[in-house]
Amino acid sequence: MRRREFLASTGGALAWGAPAAAVINAGRLRRSLEELSVFGRPAGGTFADGVSRVAFSDADVAGRRYVMGEMRKAQLDPRIDPAGNIFARRAGTENSLPPVLFGSHIDSVPQGGNFDGDVGSLAAIEVIRALNEAKITTRRPLEIVVWTSEEGVAFGLGTFGSRIASGELGSEVLTTELRQALSKIGGDGSRIGEARRAKGSFHAYLELHIEQGPRLERLGLRAGVVEGIVAIDRYDVAVHGMANHAGTTPMAERKDALLGAARFIIAAHEEIRREEGTQVGNIGEIQVTPGAPNVVPGEARLTLEMRDLSTAKLDRIIGRIRARPEAAGVEIKLRNRTEPALAAPHLQALIEKHAAAMGIKAPRMPSFAGHDAASMAQLGPMGMIFIPSIGGISHSPREFSRWEDCATGAMLLLACVVELAG
Amino acid sequence: MRRREFLASTGGALAWGAPAAAVINAGRLRRSLEELSVFGRPAGGTFADGVSRVAFSDADVAGRRYVMGEMRKAQLDPRIDPAGNIFARRAGTENSLPPVLFGSHIDSVPQGGNFDGDVGSLAAIEVIRALNEAKITTRRPLEIVVWTSEEGVAFGLGTFGSRIASGELGSEVLTTELRQALSKIGGDGSRIGEARRAKGSFHAYLELHIEQGPRLERLGLRAGVVEGIVAIDRYDVAVHGMANHAGTTPMAERKDALLGAARFIIAAHEEIRREEGTQVGNIGEIQVTPGAPNVVPGEARLTLEMRDLSTAKLDRIIGRIRARPEAAGVEIKLRNRTEPALAAPHLQALIEKHAAAMGIKAPRMPSFAGHDAASMAQLGPMGMIFIPSIGGISHSPREFSRWEDCATGAMLLLACVVELAG
Repeated sequence: MRRREFLASTGGALAWGAPAAAVINAGRLRRSLEELSVFGRPAGGTFADGVSRVAFSDADVAGRRYVMGEMRKAQLDPRIDPAGNIFARRAGTENSLPPVLFGSHIDSVPQGGNFDGDVGSLAAIEVIRALNEAKITTRRPLEIVVWTSEEGVAFGLGTFGSRIASGELGSEVLTTELRQALSKIGGDGSRIGEARRAKGSFHAYLELHIEQGPRLERLGLRAGVVEGIVAIDRYDVAVHGMANHAGTTPMAERKDALLGAARFIIAAHEEIRREEGTQVGNIGEIQVTPGAPNVVPGEARLTLEMRDLSTAKLDRIIGRIRARPEAAGVEIKLRNRTEPALAAPHLQALIEKHAAAMGIKAPRMPSFAGHDAASMAQLGPMGMIFIPSIGGISHSPREFSRWEDCATGAMLLLACVVELAG
Repeated sequence: MRRREFLASTGGALAWGAPAAAVINAGRLRRSLEELSVFGRPAGGTFADGVSRVAFSDADVAGRRYVMGEMRKAQLDPRIDPAGNIFARRAGTENSLPPVLFGSHIDSVPQGGNFDGDVGSLAAIEVIRALNEAKITTRRPLEIVVWTSEEGVAFGLGTFGSRIASGELGSEVLTTELRQALSKIGGDGSRIGEARRAKGSFHAYLELHIEQGPRLERLGLRAGVVEGIVAIDRYDVAVHGMANHAGTTPMAERKDALLGAARFIIAAHEEIRREEGTQVGNIGEIQVTPGAPNVVPGEARLTLEMRDLSTAKLDRIIGRIRARPEAAGVEIKLRNRTEPALAAPHLQALIEKHAAAMGIKAPRMPSFAGHDAASMAQLGPMGMIFIPSIGGISHSPREFSRWEDCATGAMLLLACVVELAG
């Protein structure tokens, strides 16, 4: 239907809580999350025991089958692209227009939770069901998506499906094993190029996702408007010492690489926290060579990771770290920068507007974790909605979001989709 | 001969440099070190390329054959005990008396040097040759020894042969593989108990060895008198944090085990160095869990090793480390204490006396590395002579001691053996 008609049907505004043209069924959404959770559930476990639905596993295949079944029940006809991404299109009144695209993923890390990805994927289907029930046809077509291997557990290629779609990954990454894995889920490595989507092939991309951090819950808020997905810099850091006998070498003559690394770690953390803001940094792995109790460490290698929406800030921080006396002689090399993916300002405003209409305070916040949405931002306007993660816990069976927050997120998604699709 | 006669024959004192009753042949000692060095030498290499003569390897078998050949040339009849230790006895005039025992080892670490163990083993044979040439028969019998697997590379059992002899190790350590290895070098696992030596089965044990540290060279000295072999304490240290997503977890909410470990490492080093003395300590290995760039470290485990002759000092230091605020919540558990092995005061005095007679200043110093002598100290009086290691380097092809220092060490050994054997 036309935008004017829709607005009329809800009394000129989206009157949530009151009867509306299209309404999210919170119980149905919960039920579908619970139904999906059995695929990859530990033997003898319950919903609270989480899920191991690693991409390309039997559990993933079964979960995908369930999701496609739900799509069909919602009168959609899912198709699998050569990268294994599941798309399902709902016709609009003007089908030559680029669709509004929305969705997420259903693969998990080993011993993961039942909300990461699942909420956005099943909320997308729930949006379709809600529109079906309300007999609403949008002007633009709608397209929902379940991306392949967002977690990237099996082949070390996170956000695989969306990066194939954006062209960030191509056939060069397809090993024999990965081609076989793609066949298993209905993809086709030999036609991988066809999975690439053109710029402008969608009007907007929206993704509902759990925050995976504690910020919303701490603030007592129900939803957040993602400003963008942070840049991630990874530095290879090498601290050089001199391996030596830990008995016979006097203390004053040692060049201990681990002691040097300890000083560097503290200095780096100080510089990461020196300026105001939500930037984060981590040193999560360290290897010492030769690594024996009785040998003075000759070398320590560690990885420094930093995240912020602003690469200028990240550059400023690494500059300060390099200038520290504790970094003298320490090799610090940028291994990789993942550029930030900014959400489209008009989509941020749209989400904010509908949250306000629902009486929800939804702060703007960066996403500190990567998402498929980052790749979609390369092809067109991208927006993301966050809902709180209890205790900020994710990638764990203890990952949990309140059912009412899942429904709230789905309602926000529905409202935005309807307005965007006209 | 009797002690009185020997003293008479050298003019009442060991007049080194002047004609003496028994004289070390420095060129012959060097030649034997060079000859032994070919067994385990890298293909196409020279003496300077070091040696890989890991115990029980073909190179070790060949080296042992060479050494036994040299013993036979010196009119000795070597025997191999069930632990593979090579002993050779030279009769005295009173063969019911316990012998003076001296020797070392010839096994090496992979890519080790040509002095660690070799000097003491071949100097022992040179002492016999010198006595043979001077036609000296001592009152007490002499016994030279080449211990099995001092380095403990193959089975993780350092000073294997001497610890079997002292009873510190028994048949419980004999795996099938180790039994086979023992057979290969002429030992016999089924009779391992017979390799045990009784307390008092020697009058004194002497070992000449390279320092493996830089102290003597730094002081410009030619030899050192070992006060004892240091105690070695090893502590398992666990720093607990909370593994979490390194993107979504705000800095202020992290419990980073590696950051905690960094603070602990610095504090421990400060306490080790706080008091005067030659004590040493090392943190040579660290493992971080889960150990990924994008996960806040949940746990860090490291090993703290400390060495000193005085266990009271080691206890004092660990007490101070535990009391540091950086150690709050850190688990510090003693994994193992190797008790110190003190050299017999009369043997220290004896070595010192002969060094002085040779015009050599020989400081008393701990041995910070373990040696077979430590096990012999459990059975009787033990003494050790150190010679300098250039640059303090050992366990490396760059391990080197000056030829004249090797000869000096052998002369000191000879003088002590002769006086002890009467």
